[in-house]
Amino acid sequence: MAGDDIGWIAGLIREIRDYPRPGVTFRDITPLLGDAEGFVKTINALADLFEDQAVDRVIGIEARGFIVGAPVAYRIGAGFVPARKAGKLPWAVAREEYQLEYGSDKLEIHRDALHPGERVLIIDDVLATGGTAQAAAKLVEGLGGELVGLGFVIEIEALKGRLKLGDRVAHSLIRF
Amino acid sequence: MAGDDIGWIAGLIREIRDYPRPGVTFRDITPLLGDAEGFVKTINALADLFEDQAVDRVIGIEARGFIVGAPVAYRIGAGFVPARKAGKLPWAVAREEYQLEYGSDKLEIHRDALHPGERVLIIDDVLATGGTAQAAAKLVEGLGGELVGLGFVIEIEALKGRLKLGDRVAHSLIRF
Repeated sequence: MAGDDIGWIAGLIREIRDYPRPGVTFRDITPLLGDAEGFVKTINALADLFEDQAVDRVIGIEARGFIVGAPVAYRIGAGFVPARKAGKLPWAVAREEYQLEYGSDKLEIHRDALHPGERVLIIDDVLATGGTAQAAAKLVEGLGGELVGLGFVIEIEALKGRLKLGDRVAHSLIRF
Repeated sequence: MAGDDIGWIAGLIREIRDYPRPGVTFRDITPLLGDAEGFVKTINALADLFEDQAVDRVIGIEARGFIVGAPVAYRIGAGFVPARKAGKLPWAVAREEYQLEYGSDKLEIHRDALHPGERVLIIDDVLATGGTAQAAAKLVEGLGGELVGLGFVIEIEALKGRLKLGDRVAHSLIRF
C-alpha cells in the first residue's frame, strides 16, 4: 500500500479528546468506515498484508472487529468466525479470560469453528493494550489452529500491545 | 440466486432447540459464516438483491448485522455505518427506542453518518419481531436518508416482523 493512501486513510480517523474518560484520546474509525472509498481501501490494505498466507478462517473480535474482519474474509475467500464476549454464542465454546485495567473479561469462540491445522488470521480494529488480541490468539492456538498473524487498522503504540503478542506476526495500517 | 444455492445455504444453518430458552428454536448462522463458500454466496446473494439501487451507505445492526452488512457494503462499494446499542458510539447520536418482549432497548447511529438524500440499505442477520429493524429504519428516515430497503439472511415468518416494516422494501434469503 502506498504511503499516500495511508495518509489519506488517517485523515478519516476522528480524534475525540477526553473519551471515554478525561485524559484519553479516542481514535474513532467510523468516518473511515462510512466513506465508501476509504472503507474499500482499508479492507484491501489489510487483506494485502496477508495475501500469500492461504488463510482458511478469519476471526473478527466483537464488535468493531466484525466490521473489518468480515469483509477481509470475504475479500480473501476465507470463512468468518466471530470471537464474542461471554454468553453470546449459542453452541459449545472455548473460553479465554483476559485482564482489563480494572477486573477481567472473557472471550469465546465456538469449539467447532476451527479445525486443527487450519490457517487462521485474527482481525480487529485497534491494537491497544493487546489483552483481547492475546486472548483471541490463545483461543486459536488452543483449538490447534495455525495462527498466521493478526491485523489491525490502528495501533496505539504507547500501550505496548505488541509485547503481549510475543513473536506472533502482527501488522497494523496506522500507528499513533 | 438459484434455488439450489438457497437450499445449500440453508443446510449450513444450525438449529438449536430450546435456546435461548425452552420452546424456542434458535437459527445459528455461524456455520454458514465460517464456510468460505457459503459466506461468499450469502454476501453476494444479499448484494444482488439491491444491485440496481445505487446505495451510498449500508447500515449494519449490532452485532451480527455487522458481520453481514460490512461485506455487503464492501461488495457494492458503499460506506458502512454501524447501528449500535445505547452508549457504544463516541460521537453525537440519533437514538430510537423500541419494544422488546419485556421492556425496551435503544438503537443509535452517529448523526453525521448520513446526509439527507443519501440512499441507504439496512442489513441484519435475522428478521424476527422486526423491532430492531423498524428502529433502524426510523433512524435513517429521521436523518433524511432515502431508505432503499432492508435485507436479511433469515426471516422467521411466525414472528411477523414484516408487518412492523409497513410498506418498506424488505428481502430475506431464507424463510423459516
